[in-house]
Amino acid sequence: MENIKIRVINENKEFVANKEENLLKSLINAGVNIYADCGGKGICGRCKIKIIKGNYSTQTSYLITKEEEKEKIVLACTTYPLEDLIIEIPKEFQFENKEISTYFETEKENLEKVLEKMKLDTNALIKKVNFKLPPPTIETSFSDADRLLTFLTRQKNMIVIIDDLDFLNKLPVYLRKNNWEGSVLISEKYYNDNTIFEVCDLLDNDQKFYALAIDIGTTTVAMSLIDIETLNNVITKTTFNKQMVYGEDIITRIIYSEKEEGLKQLHYKIIATLNELISEIIQSIKICQRDIYAVVISGNTTMIHFLFNILASYIRREPYTPVATKFPIIDAKNLNLMINSNAKVYSIPLVASYIGGDIVAGVVACGIDVSDEICVLIDLGTNGEIVVGNREFLVSAACSCGPAFEGVGISCGVRAVEGAIEDVKIIDGEVRYVTIGNKRPTGICGSGLIDIPAELLKAGIIDMSGRVKQDIKNPHLIDRIRKNELGEYEFIIEKKEFTDIGRDIVITQSDIQNILRSKGAIFHGLYVLLKSLNLKFSDIKKFFLSGGFGSFLDIKKAQILGLLPDIEEEKFVISGNTSLLGAKLFLVSKQARERMFEVAKKMTYIDLSNFPIYMNEYVSTLFIPHTDFSLFPNVIKYLKEVSK
Amino acid sequence: MENIKIRVINENKEFVANKEENLLKSLINAGVNIYADCGGKGICGRCKIKIIKGNYSTQTSYLITKEEEKEKIVLACTTYPLEDLIIEIPKEFQFENKEISTYFETEKENLEKVLEKMKLDTNALIKKVNFKLPPPTIETSFSDADRLLTFLTRQKNMIVIIDDLDFLNKLPVYLRKNNWEGSVLISEKYYNDNTIFEVCDLLDNDQKFYALAIDIGTTTVAMSLIDIETLNNVITKTTFNKQMVYGEDIITRIIYSEKEEGLKQLHYKIIATLNELISEIIQSIKICQRDIYAVVISGNTTMIHFLFNILASYIRREPYTPVATKFPIIDAKNLNLMINSNAKVYSIPLVASYIGGDIVAGVVACGIDVSDEICVLIDLGTNGEIVVGNREFLVSAACSCGPAFEGVGISCGVRAVEGAIEDVKIIDGEVRYVTIGNKRPTGICGSGLIDIPAELLKAGIIDMSGRVKQDIKNPHLIDRIRKNELGEYEFIIEKKEFTDIGRDIVITQSDIQNILRSKGAIFHGLYVLLKSLNLKFSDIKKFFLSGGFGSFLDIKKAQILGLLPDIEEEKFVISGNTSLLGAKLFLVSKQARERMFEVAKKMTYIDLSNFPIYMNEYVSTLFIPHTDFSLFPNVIKYLKEVSK
Repeated sequence: MENIKIRVINENKEFVANKEENLLKSLINAGVNIYADCGGKGICGRCKIKIIKGNYSTQTSYLITKEEEKEKIVLACTTYPLEDLIIEIPKEFQFENKEISTYFETEKENLEKVLEKMKLDTNALIKKVNFKLPPPTIETSFSDADRLLTFLTRQKNMIVIIDDLDFLNKLPVYLRKNNWEGSVLISEKYYNDNTIFEVCDLLDNDQKFYALAIDIGTTTVAMSLIDIETLNNVITKTTFNKQMVYGEDIITRIIYSEKEEGLKQLHYKIIATLNELISEIIQSIKICQRDIYAVVISGNTTMIHFLFNILASYIRREPYTPVATKFPIIDAKNLNLMINSNAKVYSIPLVASYIGGDIVAGVVACGIDVSDEICVLIDLGTNGEIVVGNREFLVSAACSCGPAFEGVGISCGVRAVEGAIEDVKIIDGEVRYVTIGNKRPTGICGSGLIDIPAELLKAGIIDMSGRVKQDIKNPHLIDRIRKNELGEYEFIIEKKEFTDIGRDIVITQSDIQNILRSKGAIFHGLYVLLKSLNLKFSDIKKFFLSGGFGSFLDIKKAQILGLLPDIEEEKFVISGNTSLLGAKLFLVSKQARERMFEVAKKMTYIDLSNFPIYMNEYVSTLFIPHTDFSLFPNVIKYLKEVSK
Repeated sequence: MENIKIRVINENKEFVANKEENLLKSLINAGVNIYADCGGKGICGRCKIKIIKGNYSTQTSYLITKEEEKEKIVLACTTYPLEDLIIEIPKEFQFENKEISTYFETEKENLEKVLEKMKLDTNALIKKVNFKLPPPTIETSFSDADRLLTFLTRQKNMIVIIDDLDFLNKLPVYLRKNNWEGSVLISEKYYNDNTIFEVCDLLDNDQKFYALAIDIGTTTVAMSLIDIETLNNVITKTTFNKQMVYGEDIITRIIYSEKEEGLKQLHYKIIATLNELISEIIQSIKICQRDIYAVVISGNTTMIHFLFNILASYIRREPYTPVATKFPIIDAKNLNLMINSNAKVYSIPLVASYIGGDIVAGVVACGIDVSDEICVLIDLGTNGEIVVGNREFLVSAACSCGPAFEGVGISCGVRAVEGAIEDVKIIDGEVRYVTIGNKRPTGICGSGLIDIPAELLKAGIIDMSGRVKQDIKNPHLIDRIRKNELGEYEFIIEKKEFTDIGRDIVITQSDIQNILRSKGAIFHGLYVLLKSLNLKFSDIKKFFLSGGFGSFLDIKKAQILGLLPDIEEEKFVISGNTSLLGAKLFLVSKQARERMFEVAKKMTYIDLSNFPIYMNEYVSTLFIPHTDFSLFPNVIKYLKEVSK
């Protein structure tokens, strides 16, 4: 490789690069962090650098203005050095000075404790193995690779293969430089039967290595960085899925994917989302992109198809067939993820078109597959998925509930981020609320949206069908009701002078109908699924509620709303993002991986639309809590009491 | 993918291409054959096309002149369409009109017969499997991939994995278009223990599929195209290894590889050599590059390191350690081979730094590893490798004999191509010779070079040390001897008026010394190796001679020269290119593959330089036939008779 030198003046860094590699790759290899949402495809325009000195070749791009061209600002990903270069990353494209959006950090925890509690083994997908090899002699001059592999087989009892020419190229120099001692990072290749490992990289002294656990939801994407040596969940960040611009729900996006370039655009959007989160994480905790060596993805079937750029059309067409339910282990470079190019991307197996790896992950994270008692898991995302089962059986169904509970499609809806109203009470005509982080309110998130209809009903503002009543007497409340420009009633939760968004935070008549449709879809799905299994609500011994907003959920109010069945409150377990937790478990525990493969194989999927009652009785669920009072005896009793 | 249309006017072809793929890739995918020696790296300048109409983006290149730039001539590999294009491949870059050099075609044969004769099974590395799947229903809507894999497992009893996202993307459309029937091409993934297959491609109706068997020698590269369905060896082509410009022998090239960019240049040269041969083959028999789905490479250790761009430095340094002896199966695209990008590249396992896959291939091709009797294999390439053994043991050694017998380093040396003098006799002062194909002579190839010293000796022109005598009497012969401008004697084999090269074909005093050094190295290597094993020449029951020139070799004259030991002529088997034959066997027979892995494991390598006699007695071999007459009793007897 030709010793081109590159100096990055804003970082005061100089390094040696290869003429045949584009500057983006060289900068990342040298540990200079740089944005590239599209992964170096030349389409996001975020890897702009300024050439201060030296010759280079570059491609013209519509992302570079005439002015930038004059200033020698280029895309690093399409620029190749022709000689030594001095470059600068312009201030607006520098890593440290940018804050992209309203990320929200949770769950700094140690996974070891989680594993212990769940009685799972500790056995990560990637491992560091230290070695000390006997140097070759004329009598034992077998190859460097054989020397290393023999050590791993004989001393460590591991079957390891080398599937990578770059590794072989690095090996001889590494061994001789380090006196035949060092550390090799290996990754698990097959989950079933025999475990085979593949070499991933040779590690420098004290080099850290990390992995990402990722939950790709239709609306929200969450990413945790795990330090594999300590099993610390170093940081978790979430953001909206950038695919949102192509449609809020799965079906709309699949239809979009069928347009010219549609699938590719959806694919790029999710890669851009992941690369943005990666940048955010790297920047928060100051590590190198190249030190991330593995990724576990948990997501619904459609999201995984988009992630891997695979045709999703038949997911939405009868008989609803996905292309695959298990996916190959992919090299990060082939997905253009801006981490170590040899990093492996694993995905949690899927069940069917509408039950994805997120649910498989959730079932194991909640321990349903090893439970003696009948459990229910409901994942309240944009698609609502329901699982009923225990160690004997697992049955699943899906219902499209829309992204209302993720704060999308609601006039003042927001994700569960700082400033989101998560808890609402109406007491004596006064509205009291709590925001996340006790900040000035920015909107209402899922748990707040569940509270509001119940509170409005209790306060006598709306009737059981969710419509604003005409006979409200409390003057405080009357003050809060008005008609908006669409002629629709809206209820003011907070006046603009007390919000952080410069306008009133309200809930409209349509918002309420929207919430009722969402809660109705979920409750009814569960109702029909249980019926098809000849089970009653009372047969449920544990009821897991997962989803991003879960931890703020008021069970009682969700029951009043008719979202959750009218069973004992102590049966409910608010489980948070079980898809993300499952991805972490997949990453660090072999038993978890095995259980997930087992669950994916064993779980049955039931198409609810096959049951006549699904369509016929759905409308009953659009009331608060339901038209069939016998399903909600305690709620009805309570409502009668409070309305006295 | 966006429906950009590309029209190639010189081929009168129109096809749909993807905006994000460079034009070289699109043209090849569409079945337009195009040169690209460097495999699309933008460095060979052979994929020039002219843009007639339409917008595109391209990179500037020193390979495109200002004039070409004006004419919109670009490198297809660095050009991307921005809209529909009309292009032309300029006449000088068109495929059909070019003849690169003096290729030589051999061995149109059917491998089935070869396998039968060798009692080997027929079981190719790639297989076409026809399938007919039950279409999915709402009850059986499992994934397309599972449907196919279940069929392969249950109906064909094969463990098949899908490791390729492109395949998954192609699958759903293919299945539905073809009514759930079709053919999948699979390739073998592991040779040992369990055989696992990997999907390679979905085949169109009646699509043909081929594989390449390749012998990469230090001087010569040979390539055979095999039709996997019929097992026909459709065509074989050979050429010089383009690495020759960096040195004739292995050590010189390794030293070159240690320079800046040296390894990469050697790597590109071998890729360019292979791509040129591929172009030649494609062009001769009119098939598509994309229909070639597998490659088996047989080569010496250094060549394989260069092929895979792996550091070869420690091959030449004590204790002579290669980086690896078994190499991963590589995707053709990662090597920039201009065949189907999903094609798999397999390499025959190596033994040690100086005993490569070519020798392992040769041992199996000659059946030494299953022979009851003691056999010898000598491979007369630029490195002379020697194997002694049978089913019980296999011992090998190497000696650097130089490329003289490949016609390199000899003033009028040529490869064994048409017009090469392959047989020389001097009778009554007259020189009689035979050329390959009975063409006008162009030079002397290996077998001719072996004849000449023996004939010159018999005719009394040179003495046993190879020096031209001063007392020649025959006036015809005196006429043929002259001193050249270096003051060195040379003997005229043919006058320029009768040659095809416009100058005399001669053999010089240095040429003879060169031949003697080469033959001496080989004979002495064998002598020392046998001695180390306590074996005598007479213990050898079969003596295989392999190498490109082998089939024209006159055993008797090789014995007079002292190249071959003085044993019964019928023990010698002239075996041709056993490295190439072995590569073909590896490709089409599982037993052959297993035997080669076994041979690579079992064969011992002996470093001849460890034996004092190797250095001390070498000089004895620089005579014709040898200073120790007792080693050549029959030759000495014969020489005495003819000199009477």
